[in-house]
Amino acid sequence: MTRPALDIAAVLATVGGDLVAGDGTPAGGFSRLCSPAALCSGGAGPDAIVILARQAELAAYTAASAAAIQPLPGVMIIGPDIAVTALPQGVNAVRVVDARLALARISKVLDRRQPPAHGVHDSAQISPSARVDPASSVGAGTVVAEDAEVAKGTVIGPNSYLGRGSSLGADCLVHANVTIYDGVSIGARVIIHSGAVIGADGFGYAASQAGAVKIWHAGGVIIGDDVEIGANTAIDRGTIDDTVVGARTKIDNLCQIGHNVTLGSDCLVAGTAAIGGSVSIGRGVIIGGNVAIADHVKIGDGARVAGRSGITKDIPAGETWAGFPARTYRSYVRSLYLSDRLEQIWEHVRKRSKGDAE
Amino acid sequence: MTRPALDIAAVLATVGGDLVAGDGTPAGGFSRLCSPAALCSGGAGPDAIVILARQAELAAYTAASAAAIQPLPGVMIIGPDIAVTALPQGVNAVRVVDARLALARISKVLDRRQPPAHGVHDSAQISPSARVDPASSVGAGTVVAEDAEVAKGTVIGPNSYLGRGSSLGADCLVHANVTIYDGVSIGARVIIHSGAVIGADGFGYAASQAGAVKIWHAGGVIIGDDVEIGANTAIDRGTIDDTVVGARTKIDNLCQIGHNVTLGSDCLVAGTAAIGGSVSIGRGVIIGGNVAIADHVKIGDGARVAGRSGITKDIPAGETWAGFPARTYRSYVRSLYLSDRLEQIWEHVRKRSKGDAE
Amino acid sequence: MTRPALDIAAVLATVGGDLVAGDGTPAGGFSRLCSPAALCSGGAGPDAIVILARQAELAAYTAASAAAIQPLPGVMIIGPDIAVTALPQGVNAVRVVDARLALARISKVLDRRQPPAHGVHDSAQISPSARVDPASSVGAGTVVAEDAEVAKGTVIGPNSYLGRGSSLGADCLVHANVTIYDGVSIGARVIIHSGAVIGADGFGYAASQAGAVKIWHAGGVIIGDDVEIGANTAIDRGTIDDTVVGARTKIDNLCQIGHNVTLGSDCLVAGTAAIGGSVSIGRGVIIGGNVAIADHVKIGDGARVAGRSGITKDIPAGETWAGFPARTYRSYVRSLYLSDRLEQIWEHVRKRSKGDAE
Repeated sequence: MTRPALDIAAVLATVGGDLVAGDGTPAGGFSRLCSPAALCSGGAGPDAIVILARQAELAAYTAASAAAIQPLPGVMIIGPDIAVTALPQGVNAVRVVDARLALARISKVLDRRQPPAHGVHDSAQISPSARVDPASSVGAGTVVAEDAEVAKGTVIGPNSYLGRGSSLGADCLVHANVTIYDGVSIGARVIIHSGAVIGADGFGYAASQAGAVKIWHAGGVIIGDDVEIGANTAIDRGTIDDTVVGARTKIDNLCQIGHNVTLGSDCLVAGTAAIGGSVSIGRGVIIGGNVAIADHVKIGDGARVAGRSGITKDIPAGETWAGFPARTYRSYVRSLYLSDRLEQIWEHVRKRSKGDAE
Repeated sequence: MTRPALDIAAVLATVGGDLVAGDGTPAGGFSRLCSPAALCSGGAGPDAIVILARQAELAAYTAASAAAIQPLPGVMIIGPDIAVTALPQGVNAVRVVDARLALARISKVLDRRQPPAHGVHDSAQISPSARVDPASSVGAGTVVAEDAEVAKGTVIGPNSYLGRGSSLGADCLVHANVTIYDGVSIGARVIIHSGAVIGADGFGYAASQAGAVKIWHAGGVIIGDDVEIGANTAIDRGTIDDTVVGARTKIDNLCQIGHNVTLGSDCLVAGTAAIGGSVSIGRGVIIGGNVAIADHVKIGDGARVAGRSGITKDIPAGETWAGFPARTYRSYVRSLYLSDRLEQIWEHVRKRSKGDAE
Repeated sequence: MTRPALDIAAVLATVGGDLVAGDGTPAGGFSRLCSPAALCSGGAGPDAIVILARQAELAAYTAASAAAIQPLPGVMIIGPDIAVTALPQGVNAVRVVDARLALARISKVLDRRQPPAHGVHDSAQISPSARVDPASSVGAGTVVAEDAEVAKGTVIGPNSYLGRGSSLGADCLVHANVTIYDGVSIGARVIIHSGAVIGADGFGYAASQAGAVKIWHAGGVIIGDDVEIGANTAIDRGTIDDTVVGARTKIDNLCQIGHNVTLGSDCLVAGTAAIGGSVSIGRGVIIGGNVAIADHVKIGDGARVAGRSGITKDIPAGETWAGFPARTYRSYVRSLYLSDRLEQIWEHVRKRSKGDAE
């Protein structure tokens, strides 16, 4: 497990910035990220890269002057608003337009979790009718069922399951203990975290005198390119048509995506959000954490849903909604303001009512 | 993986309806369901069965006349309120009393996920003291522990675990990556989706000066016949007595069923519902999605809990409750109405209070 | 699977109480717990231990006099407030200071789930560079990756995964189908239930014109001694620094612990609680079930959060908060009171407004 290391030129190439301070020594060997907090408590060193979006991140952690921080990191990457004079003295500094984007790019280059060697582990179980690209990797105990496909560059961790006729596109990363049912089509560069379950039957029954009669779900699931799916998230298959997750959409841990949902491209769905059956969500929608969305709701492109909201009605494109039952954010904030007036309202009413009685 | 196919006679036998339109050709080869949406966008064909509960399902998807839809499906199954004249011209139509029940029945017959051949996979680990019926199927990597039982016709997917002394009744379907702890008794025809965990210790501790002291849970879990348990749902074992789930009850994904819960027969528990410890729920209760129920609450037979409610008090049999803290549905609706009057109330109070000051 | 059995002396030694009733026969063979409910319905017997914290536990289950209950348990362990005269006639009774603590201690001694024999199952996959103590146990199909460590006395169930460089301290109990990513450090005596996922990437992205760019998480997870983690709970790794769970903290099922969280020692986090990214929680904090905590919130030592609350602001040490948006418990209760006055308020306003119009 050798660690990748960068030099100044590689840092500049990765983040697209300019060297705005420092003498450029050390010239390289930058192999790890160091947080602003760790920098302030002495955790840096010549191998460390510190990324600073706002000056306040230093002030939060050091009582002394930032200029006195020791040891210095190898390089600091700073956002547009940071004065070089406010940095530790003598540090190399690279200025970028977007410090968070710089973090994302550096984090990928430095990621120490190198993909395993190509090949199928001896204890993996690959159906003779499955097509597993030789330039992919299938972990110990993982099962690839009949007619399933694993494309080039894809890595599946241990003890996962890829069901009959399901496919993983190129360069996917499927962690350990993931379950993909049959009839699930997954695009390229998709990341699926452990415990995720893709393609279980939706919660659909018909009533009968003998009790609920199960609807066996004939639809599948289609996951677009560059999607990421969090740990222990469940995405149900469709009843007849497919459940669909659009390209570049990111879904956090422990989310529920019901049957027949269509989730557009470039959405963000934060942790423990629950999206009911047949919900239709447009492109570029942001769903906050712990949100619940009732069955059949439609949410337009670019809408935003505040954390812990409960959505019972359609949300037009571009709007931000909050609360439960959810309404526009403006209306929600007003309702909180009015609720906070209740003490005053009640006092008024009590006084007047008393007046009535007298 | 050959696909089952039906002819008209088989369709009629399955759904119990009458042929009310069409010349009965094609006479068979119906092998897939096609949704009303797909029908309207040209996705049908002589192999397709379309089930239509309401005429509005066609109107939602086609701007043109339903009569002009092409290609025709092999057969349409229609609910009682649909006029034959409103269907695509020349289609075979079967009228049924309950279109959703027809969907459930047809979906089962057409389900393409045929059970695997009987037998224990070479890589499964079966304890010598376990009793696995030869007419059952145990998937790759699955572990069946000491004294566990797997009855006739039951299928366990790959990489699951059946703990010591636990039993699965006849004709169960346990998907991949399911965990069943020791001391869990499961009835016949139970379906358990991937990631479900049955029988983990409940969340119970005694306080002590050295910190929380764990209560090791001695109870088990009893699951009745025909239960379905969703993906990543957790059902904890009892502290001393058993946690119980009644026959025909259906539990959706990512639900939490706490220790000592008794959940009656014929209940529906929708996704991400959280049922606290020692909760007692009667028969035929419907729990909406994202509901939370506090410890020790009792809910009577036939009660209904609206989605996203938080239940802190007992609910009498037959009542519908909603909101948080939950109350009767009638009272909840009234409270929403009153909250919506707050703007008007506040205006009134402000005006009068101003008058006071003057 | 032989069952442990206690005699009176062992019971007294385990719970630290005094024999206050009974002739001490049977002198031993106490091998199971029996609940007060089961006692009242005839489920006891000379092998049974009944623990009674409050007299009301008997009254709840028996219409007849407690004194008439048959068959008697071998021994009853009773809390300080229970009169010996209110017990079944002739029963052996041991009085303790804390009946719940007695339950915890007895439950551990009687736990029938004996650890498996030491050793690595033939089908487990242990990397040559991993260090697995010979006095530990690794279940069937479990994978221990490069440079991982498993200390003495630790048991890992079947089909789990311990990632590269991760470590489990002494005497841990990791159930089946648990996933521990790389770079996770776990203390001694930690219990992890099935389906739990420790160390998945946090939900962090940078925006770019080409869509969200993933932040590859370089931090790890540190879990202190004596922690318990529930089924299907997810604890994300840190972005740069580690996510930390303090010693003796207990986390229930289906909880989400976001990236960079620091959760102090001796906390209790109840089921389906969702803790956002970079949340900081002090020592001895109690988080109720179904609580959601927004990103970056700070909660002081000894604070308590009522069930189903949504926390959007910092909570000072020692305070109890409730509701959504959460406030102090006192303020929350007042707000419920005021909401319940809305009918009366509305009536008042309607009457007066009518007066205005006239």
